[in-house]
Parts: sequence; C-alpha cells; structure tokens
Amino acid sequence: MTTLHIPPEWAFEFHGHRCPFMPIGYRMGKLALEHLGVAREQDHGLFVFPELGEGHPQTCMMDGMQVATGATYGKLLMAKTFYGKLAATFFHPQKGAVRFALQPEFIDAMGKFEFFAYRKRGIEPSQIALTVTEPVIQWMYDQTDDFIFKVETLPDFKFTPVKGSFNKTKCTVCGEYVFDRYVRIKDGQPMCIPCSGYGNN
Amino acid sequence: MTTLHIPPEWAFEFHGHRCPFMPIGYRMGKLALEHLGVAREQDHGLFVFPELGEGHPQTCMMDGMQVATGATYGKLLMAKTFYGKLAATFFHPQKGAVRFALQPEFIDAMGKFEFFAYRKRGIEPSQIALTVTEPVIQWMYDQTDDFIFKVETLPDFKFTPVKGSFNKTKCTVCGEYVFDRYVRIKDGQPMCIPCSGYGNN
Repeated sequence: MTTLHIPPEWAFEFHGHRCPFMPIGYRMGKLALEHLGVAREQDHGLFVFPELGEGHPQTCMMDGMQVATGATYGKLLMAKTFYGKLAATFFHPQKGAVRFALQPEFIDAMGKFEFFAYRKRGIEPSQIALTVTEPVIQWMYDQTDDFIFKVETLPDFKFTPVKGSFNKTKCTVCGEYVFDRYVRIKDGQPMCIPCSGYGNN
Repeated sequence: MTTLHIPPEWAFEFHGHRCPFMPIGYRMGKLALEHLGVAREQDHGLFVFPELGEGHPQTCMMDGMQVATGATYGKLLMAKTFYGKLAATFFHPQKGAVRFALQPEFIDAMGKFEFFAYRKRGIEPSQIALTVTEPVIQWMYDQTDDFIFKVETLPDFKFTPVKGSFNKTKCTVCGEYVFDRYVRIKDGQPMCIPCSGYGNN
C-alpha cells in the first residue's frame, strides 16, 4: 500500500502556477526520502542531482523536489547535471544514493493530454484554463508509482561536497566582500571576479 | 515609507530552518520586484542571477529570492554566477535589470551576533537555539533598506534565454527519453550523455 504524495498548497504558491510537473517532482522527492529512510532535510545533509538541463520543458519537477526534500538550491543541495533527462539522483552520505527516472510509457501517455498542446503553442501555464490543467494533474495522481517511476539504487555513487569557509576579503576596486575562494589577484591587489576582468576561469 | 518585507511561514518551512539569510534574500527579492514594477513571476518571465558560489556560507539568501520573486530554479529562472558575492541581479526583458548587493557595513554589524559563532563552529542552523537565532533575524528586520542594500540599475544588462524545444529522442542504450539538444551520437546511434560516455562537453 503506497501513500499518495500530493503537494501542499504552498508548494503551488511557491512554484507560481499549476502544472503536472511540480507535483511529479514532489512525489519523486517524497518517495526518494522513503527509499533512503531519511526525513525532509532541514540543513545541509541531502543532495539532489536532477538530470534536467536548459532549453527544454518539464524542468518544473525540480521545484517539487526542492519542496519535498528540503534539498534546496539556496542551501547548495541541488545541482543539475545537464543531461536533458527526466530523472534525478538523491544522495545522503550515510544512507546512499537512489535514482528515480520517469518511465517513457508514462511520459508518452501523459503527453496526450490537452495541456501539452497548449504548452507546445507557447501558452504559459498560468494562462491555461484549470479545466485543462487539472485533469492531467489528477490523472498523474491516479497512476501507480511503478507506472511513473523507474527506481535504481546506486551503490557506487560518490559525491564529496566542497569544503566551506567563512573567510572573506574586500575587493579593492568595488569595496564589496568576496568569499576567499573567489578572490582574484590583479596588479597585486585582491579583487572580485567582475572587477578583475578575468572571467570565471 | 517602506513596507517591511517578512517571509510567510511557509517560506521557513520550504527553507527547512530559521536563519537570517533566507529572510534577507526574501526582502531583497520583494524590493527588486518593486524597483522593476513587476508582480511575483507565475511563469517564465523574470530572471535572477545571484552572485553566490559554492564552498561559502550565506547562500540561503537564494531560497528567499525564489520565494519572493517566483523566479525559481525549477523554472530555470535562477542561475548563480559563481562570483562568491552577496548580491544578485534581477532582470525582466521588458523592465530592465537591477542589482542589489549587501552593504559591507551591514555584513560586519550582523556578523557580531552569536548566531555566527555557532555557525563557524559547524553547528547546523536547525540545532541552534531560537534564543540565539531570533535576535539576529529581528535585528535584520529592524534595519533600514538603505543600510542593508546597495541598489544599482543596470541599463546595459543583456540576457537572452535559451530557445526551448519539446523534441525528445529515446536513448538507444538505456531507452530513456533525452531532450534533443542533449542527444549525442555514438557509433551512429542516438544516446544520452551518460550512455555515450562522452561527458558534458
């Protein structure tokens, strides 16, 4: 018996519109927490690597993952792999890693809903009538976890978070603080990357 | 007369713990919306480029920015510049761009609160007593916008979002869908990046 995971209303408020992908990401995130046996992350101990990229749709999944897991972008716990795939790996240093991917058959079946005809014509989600949006969300809720998700444990997955430091230095040009790993030296003076003109490399 | 911008309770729930930086990012985001004259973004029309990086603290600001502006990571509206600076640029194609940075004097004054002594000893925010955390949050609320933020309009700022496509192809190795811009060809067959072994470049 599985528990159906439906996002709280504030998750839709956070996301900004109603669509099926934020709730799919939420459901994926909740199932991943259950698989790993961990609670929603309050601090900095759970990492999510969505395989999404840019220039394609359905990335809204990541907002649902943030809401469900607490592995937020602001806490540096979420980073895309830029593979352009509808999948994500959830990693806890003490509990291991699990990868959830959307099943192609699920994606094909969902793609027949009218919602996507609007999206392909460039209509933004907030401008699509709820009579079009709600049926695809409800249909997704009605599908089984197995039909939606392929699940693989990844026993060899490795990830070491960057070691952090609080040290910072004032840029000698703009006067703003820069955390030390990003300070650059130009003409013997410490500067931020933009003032140095060096770029990011 | 300024309106004090305090995050709703669900913003703290989203973030996972109480700390001063999520509310600072929220306040920055709300002020940026007012400066640009735009509402919270429901869909995909407002971009935020935080100048944060990795391996340093205070990135929690970005969760407050996501909550305040609706420019979420999941909607591909937020991307770090990796400058290691406590600042962000907010860009709306029809309204222009504005940059908010934390004033060094504000950072220095805030750094004297006991909360940061705990953080520097590696104590996670959820494990710090509210009697330590709440005073620094309240102190931040009590400061003026001018003391906290440096604000610059950026008339020459340019950004063109990547053009999106719904087209996708099944990887001939794993059978999973890949959005076309990320499909790679190996031995004449379309593959996803991991199955190709090519890496991200």
